Amino acid sequence: MDYVYGPGRNHLFVPGPVNIPEPVLRAMNRNNEDYRSPAVPAMTKTLLEDVKKIFKTTSGTPFMIPTTGTGAWESALTNTLSPGDRIVSFLIGQFSLLWIDQQQRLKFNVDVVESEWGQGANLDVLESKIAEDTAHTIKAICIVHNETATGVTNNLAKVRKILVLKWLSICLRMWLSIIYLRQSHRVLADINNYMHPALFLVDGVSSICALDFRMDEWGVDVALTGSQKALSLPTGIGIVCASPKALEASKSAKSVRVFFDWNDYLKFYKLGTYWPYTPSIQLLYGLRTALDLLFEEGLDNVIARHSRLGKATRLAVEAWGLKNCTQSEEWVSDTVTAVLVPPYIDSTEIVKRAWKRYNLSLGLGLNKIAGKVFRIGHLGNLNELQLLGCLAGVEMVLKDVGYPVKLGSGVAAASAYFQNNTPLIPSRI
Amino acid sequence: MDYVYGPGRNHLFVPGPVNIPEPVLRAMNRNNEDYRSPAVPAMTKTLLEDVKKIFKTTSGTPFMIPTTGTGAWESALTNTLSPGDRIVSFLIGQFSLLWIDQQQRLKFNVDVVESEWGQGANLDVLESKIAEDTAHTIKAICIVHNETATGVTNNLAKVRKILVLKWLSICLRMWLSIIYLRQSHRVLADINNYMHPALFLVDGVSSICALDFRMDEWGVDVALTGSQKALSLPTGIGIVCASPKALEASKSAKSVRVFFDWNDYLKFYKLGTYWPYTPSIQLLYGLRTALDLLFEEGLDNVIARHSRLGKATRLAVEAWGLKNCTQSEEWVSDTVTAVLVPPYIDSTEIVKRAWKRYNLSLGLGLNKIAGKVFRIGHLGNLNELQLLGCLAGVEMVLKDVGYPVKLGSGVAAASAYFQNNTPLIPSRI
Amino acid sequence: MDYVYGPGRNHLFVPGPVNIPEPVLRAMNRNNEDYRSPAVPAMTKTLLEDVKKIFKTTSGTPFMIPTTGTGAWESALTNTLSPGDRIVSFLIGQFSLLWIDQQQRLKFNVDVVESEWGQGANLDVLESKIAEDTAHTIKAICIVHNETATGVTNNLAKVRKILVLKWLSICLRMWLSIIYLRQSHRVLADINNYMHPALFLVDGVSSICALDFRMDEWGVDVALTGSQKALSLPTGIGIVCASPKALEASKSAKSVRVFFDWNDYLKFYKLGTYWPYTPSIQLLYGLRTALDLLFEEGLDNVIARHSRLGKATRLAVEAWGLKNCTQSEEWVSDTVTAVLVPPYIDSTEIVKRAWKRYNLSLGLGLNKIAGKVFRIGHLGNLNELQLLGCLAGVEMVLKDVGYPVKLGSGVAAASAYFQNNTPLIPSRI
Amino acid sequence: MDYVYGPGRNHLFVPGPVNIPEPVLRAMNRNNEDYRSPAVPAMTKTLLEDVKKIFKTTSGTPFMIPTTGTGAWESALTNTLSPGDRIVSFLIGQFSLLWIDQQQRLKFNVDVVESEWGQGANLDVLESKIAEDTAHTIKAICIVHNETATGVTNNLAKVRKILVLKWLSICLRMWLSIIYLRQSHRVLADINNYMHPALFLVDGVSSICALDFRMDEWGVDVALTGSQKALSLPTGIGIVCASPKALEASKSAKSVRVFFDWNDYLKFYKLGTYWPYTPSIQLLYGLRTALDLLFEEGLDNVIARHSRLGKATRLAVEAWGLKNCTQSEEWVSDTVTAVLVPPYIDSTEIVKRAWKRYNLSLGLGLNKIAGKVFRIGHLGNLNELQLLGCLAGVEMVLKDVGYPVKLGSGVAAASAYFQNNTPLIPSRI
Repeated sequence: MDYVYGPGRNHLFVPGPVNIPEPVLRAMNRNNEDYRSPAVPAMTKTLLEDVKKIFKTTSGTPFMIPTTGTGAWESALTNTLSPGDRIVSFLIGQFSLLWIDQQQRLKFNVDVVESEWGQGANLDVLESKIAEDTAHTIKAICIVHNETATGVTNNLAKVRKILVLKWLSICLRMWLSIIYLRQSHRVLADINNYMHPALFLVDGVSSICALDFRMDEWGVDVALTGSQKALSLPTGIGIVCASPKALEASKSAKSVRVFFDWNDYLKFYKLGTYWPYTPSIQLLYGLRTALDLLFEEGLDNVIARHSRLGKATRLAVEAWGLKNCTQSEEWVSDTVTAVLVPPYIDSTEIVKRAWKRYNLSLGLGLNKIAGKVFRIGHLGNLNELQLLGCLAGVEMVLKDVGYPVKLGSGVAAASAYFQNNTPLIPSRI
Repeated sequence: MDYVYGPGRNHLFVPGPVNIPEPVLRAMNRNNEDYRSPAVPAMTKTLLEDVKKIFKTTSGTPFMIPTTGTGAWESALTNTLSPGDRIVSFLIGQFSLLWIDQQQRLKFNVDVVESEWGQGANLDVLESKIAEDTAHTIKAICIVHNETATGVTNNLAKVRKILVLKWLSICLRMWLSIIYLRQSHRVLADINNYMHPALFLVDGVSSICALDFRMDEWGVDVALTGSQKALSLPTGIGIVCASPKALEASKSAKSVRVFFDWNDYLKFYKLGTYWPYTPSIQLLYGLRTALDLLFEEGLDNVIARHSRLGKATRLAVEAWGLKNCTQSEEWVSDTVTAVLVPPYIDSTEIVKRAWKRYNLSLGLGLNKIAGKVFRIGHLGNLNELQLLGCLAGVEMVLKDVGYPVKLGSGVAAASAYFQNNTPLIPSRI
Repeated sequence: MDYVYGPGRNHLFVPGPVNIPEPVLRAMNRNNEDYRSPAVPAMTKTLLEDVKKIFKTTSGTPFMIPTTGTGAWESALTNTLSPGDRIVSFLIGQFSLLWIDQQQRLKFNVDVVESEWGQGANLDVLESKIAEDTAHTIKAICIVHNETATGVTNNLAKVRKILVLKWLSICLRMWLSIIYLRQSHRVLADINNYMHPALFLVDGVSSICALDFRMDEWGVDVALTGSQKALSLPTGIGIVCASPKALEASKSAKSVRVFFDWNDYLKFYKLGTYWPYTPSIQLLYGLRTALDLLFEEGLDNVIARHSRLGKATRLAVEAWGLKNCTQSEEWVSDTVTAVLVPPYIDSTEIVKRAWKRYNLSLGLGLNKIAGKVFRIGHLGNLNELQLLGCLAGVEMVLKDVGYPVKLGSGVAAASAYFQNNTPLIPSRI
Repeated sequence: MDYVYGPGRNHLFVPGPVNIPEPVLRAMNRNNEDYRSPAVPAMTKTLLEDVKKIFKTTSGTPFMIPTTGTGAWESALTNTLSPGDRIVSFLIGQFSLLWIDQQQRLKFNVDVVESEWGQGANLDVLESKIAEDTAHTIKAICIVHNETATGVTNNLAKVRKILVLKWLSICLRMWLSIIYLRQSHRVLADINNYMHPALFLVDGVSSICALDFRMDEWGVDVALTGSQKALSLPTGIGIVCASPKALEASKSAKSVRVFFDWNDYLKFYKLGTYWPYTPSIQLLYGLRTALDLLFEEGLDNVIARHSRLGKATRLAVEAWGLKNCTQSEEWVSDTVTAVLVPPYIDSTEIVKRAWKRYNLSLGLGLNKIAGKVFRIGHLGNLNELQLLGCLAGVEMVLKDVGYPVKLGSGVAAASAYFQNNTPLIPSRI
């Protein structure tokens, strides 16, 4: 079974699935349980409440579907849209490509806005499309918050600004500053009524619980993530969160769906039994613990930690004299860094060698950029020294494959940053 | 978390999810892993080979989908059929009802053959429908092998016989007895060419790995099960196995599908990387161990053990003076027994009390038979003494709720059977 | 590894090691940790406080020694006594025999008071020895609270009464009833000053956490247990609790000791680092959880549960027409029942067959009573239905080996008792 | 419980207890078991055979005692010596000091040979003592193979040479070269007959399974280790291995012992039940897996890996401009490095800060060298990148406490060494 056993820990730095913390492994180490007993619904109730916090939503309705990110995508689309609906979707890397492929196979009319891989979504094009769409033919905007293949983070706050029509925005701001003044928060919510009616669907698979994400504030209608990413669980729960507007849309959406149908969940939510079919007991307890750990650390501290890990990685890449696949600082990702290798090196060799010699798991370059980049995932339950071990490993591998790296250079750059910026562990002060 | 803690083991006798054996729990107690490293594909390859054995197929192609039984149903249907297709489906209990509901929502033209709950599928009706269908309008026959709600096992071998048209059957038999004689096995496979072309889709969720099931011999085109049933794993893998004919059908099936699409799997099977999206590493290792345990015990011994557990349970029910929901011996199920309670007792109270007083988890009566039956699941990694503990518990609960049971009577009947029929554990002889 | 694998759970009914509850298994599923970090001492502090509760002592000092019950015995003896010291020790079965063997090898002058196996300690002999010992040559009374080999529980309260000299007792009672009246509790403690000065050493290995045990009230000077017994942990912690008088004795005790020396512990207790050598991190976390479970259930409820389990087992034995090895009701044990078999049956065959055919682990007869008794351990984290499964198994095995048992008879007797006496699980009401 | 939770893995670099590999954690994740069933003895038998391999002995007899290293010490001494026996013992650091303290408390006449902490055992003194001891008053030589407090490895081969009297040695060599020629191995064993009769007792707690150790070849009479060191298990098994000469000595040794008495084990070895008292089932399965992993990697490869880890650590220390506590290259340890800090720094602060800020567990300086050194344990199931992460962490901590380290310098030195010397993982080639 473990015929590929190597001594010591595996250094897992693919951008998912990520390292599972010990308390979560412990929580999942259990027999099955009757999910119709009072215990499982009682726990599910707390999970549904708490899972909203990772989306930063109070009005959203979450669904914890026994599926993967791909299934979560399908659930988001089929519950809110009908075949033939026009949607705007951004192609910036392998995962946005796969989502677009799904959108097309689900028979939507996909208006693809493509960027070079390494760039973020072209929001200028979105702006003009929205401005032109006075007939409201655009039914949804689909965007990947963080493109895992290229390490590019899109600016969701900006998408939202585009969706709020300009003149309305101006009028409102004046009106608000006069009348509500201190109730701006409540009014901001009302703004949604004046937005372009397109639904705003966000793939947050490699962002939520790691990057700043604000479902309510940004007017996101459907956001989704997978348990094996920043939540640091095994694969098996696709978490989809729907705004009231998205729930409303689901009533008339004509896409055929059964397994992924939110209505089946809503029916059982009302009954208080919560599950239309058998959930994984183990993953529910694991999720309970994963959320507890997130809240103990503090979601903002978790995001700050990812910011440190991302920054340190980029400093190391720079110190090695290599380029980040991400073409501009505005899009850099704090959860994954795709590193461009010189043309004379095959990045696939780097990934193979890292695993074979140093028990280090790095991410491959995918599709267009296969052989050209390798990826360092730095998301989930991960700390500074784990990353430094990985960076030291990357340095040795780079040397192994003939790149003239100065050993220790990346680690030095990263640790200088950490040494200045890492706070004490709060529970140990 | 364990606020419903009770001392000692929980006695888990719902018909799924079932008890997980310790070796499987151990195997799953692990960190995530890069599923693109050489290790996971190598293991997946062995799983795909071995999983075919539980379906008793050599020609089938299995798919291990990160989903539940409901998702497995959807995968079976959408990959082989097109909206509007006429299918014959048997309604005999809550789970067949749910599958029919799914079939209808997926826009098939469902020809429902209903039986009273407690009876098996009405195969006479099937016979006449098939006989009449010279135009071959019936595209598929959908049948639940074992209806978990009522404890009814359908006769799949008979379904198959019906699908092989009679006259062809007669001619062939004569022909065969003359010519092939010693190659009857090969020819039996050829028979499929003379069958009614309808696909034969089987829900084996509560049967496969526990009841006699022979995909190839019975000409089943799609069979499916869920990991949390007789495989004794957590929920999370829907295993679907497709015959060559089903695979062929999938090429022209027009039902919209992405997550459940077999083609995405087949593409990755060819590449040797196997996974179109992230599998649960833990469940793969768990499945590896679950299969190892099944093969160590011997699949036929596993089936014989379930036969003993089923028989003993029925003897206990009889000894208590209660009736089995299953109306005839021909349909009794060796994986779940639904017990009818007298009208003056609410079976829901039995289930509640069992859990509250004896840490015993029984299955509720569902839908039409809610309050009228309680269910004892006796499938998966379970042995005689576990069942006897459960039966002793049921006796006490029956007394608790006012049924005049003779304590010990069911246990006596069941243990008399066990004492005569249980072999020594092979590894301990 | 699991070459003796049998399907389903092992039914573990030896009187130790016993079943470990899942929450404890989870708690122990962890990597090693630096035991000199602030975390381990902080946890150890809570353990030392809480472990006193299972001894029902406030004045005692506990030691959690990385050893077995045999080591705990040695620690109790060598810390309080000097070679040549006269001690009175009761021989009533295999474990008291082993303790006496240890006492002799440790060079004490052991005054053995023997009873027939199946009887309790002969306290009349103790009474006369104490009465005669005006010179106080007896330095310690050593008694096994519950003899695991025969299922005999000794009356410790009575031992204590004997140690308090009669005339003093009479005077005191009069005096007390007049003067202190409402402070009898405080005065009872003072009584110790008037007792015979012999130390009162108790082996509570198969009693503490299961049977009524009151260290302070009964004037016990050293009590001890092992983690793998009623605490329901793995083997590995010998817990020894010393009264102030025992601690005082340890200052002058001349038995050679290092590993088992309490003084090394006391030195580290003062430093607040607690451990003179490396403890098992896993067992500490396991113990933390085991205590939490005990307190959640309530120690008195735990004792009541053992009382039910013991009573039910004895009723079953009676129903089978067999005799309890324990010769009188006054000594029956609620943690283990030794069952006498008819002369024409070898009890060893029963134990072997139970394991080979039903995956049931029973205790062997030991030494003198080998072949004559088999033992049912019913201690630790165990509930009613588990025991009933075991009893059903014993019935079948009895039949297997030719004893004309009426199947179901024992289960019927036991479950009648349970059905009348088992409360609802408090957390589920 | 986890109130000192910090995100990510704990970086455990104390010189024991060390990191437990996942396969071992899995193996130990199990319920208790009857240790008198056929399964446990069968496994124990394989363990006793295999555990001899880690001592490199074929003639030794191993004992797996449920205790710690301190208990293993006691077992080694009390089974082979009598009170008053003269023994030569080397004091070179805290652990040899503690062993000597034990020897004195056990009433031996200890001839202490002290060296400065940071130096190895003074073998010249031994040589003269042995030479002078024509009356054979020295009954044992006690030496710590690797002093964990100072990171000093003693030269055991040299001790052995000293014990073989010179003239005998010369005669024998001549004799052998003539007569046996090709049977030197057998004759080397015979040499033992001509040695000084003193027993050669070795504490291999932080060496065995990590450093080159050859019980038979070096004529060691008792060697011992603890499960939580290089075996990478939890604390709980003290493994003691006795040569035939040591076993012989145990027959006449007069030290009082019961729990630690080898004879009790030998009695049960003969019976084939192996255990005089209850072992930890979990640790037995853990040990089984730990040995399997060691043999899969290859014991010599394990030792070579430790050599790389030790060398790399020392190169890092040098690059930081710090001194190794070990004063000469001949004594450097490949399992632990004690690093001297400048007088203006308190090494305790380094250890505290490492834990509080970076979740890094380092070893404290002990006793005489408290505050002056911190220790990096690099033993057990550990790989290169784990160590590099640790070294990067140490660099940051050094900077935190005001030492002017060049960040990345140590990592660079260590990784240059690794990059030149680390082989591919054999199972992944």
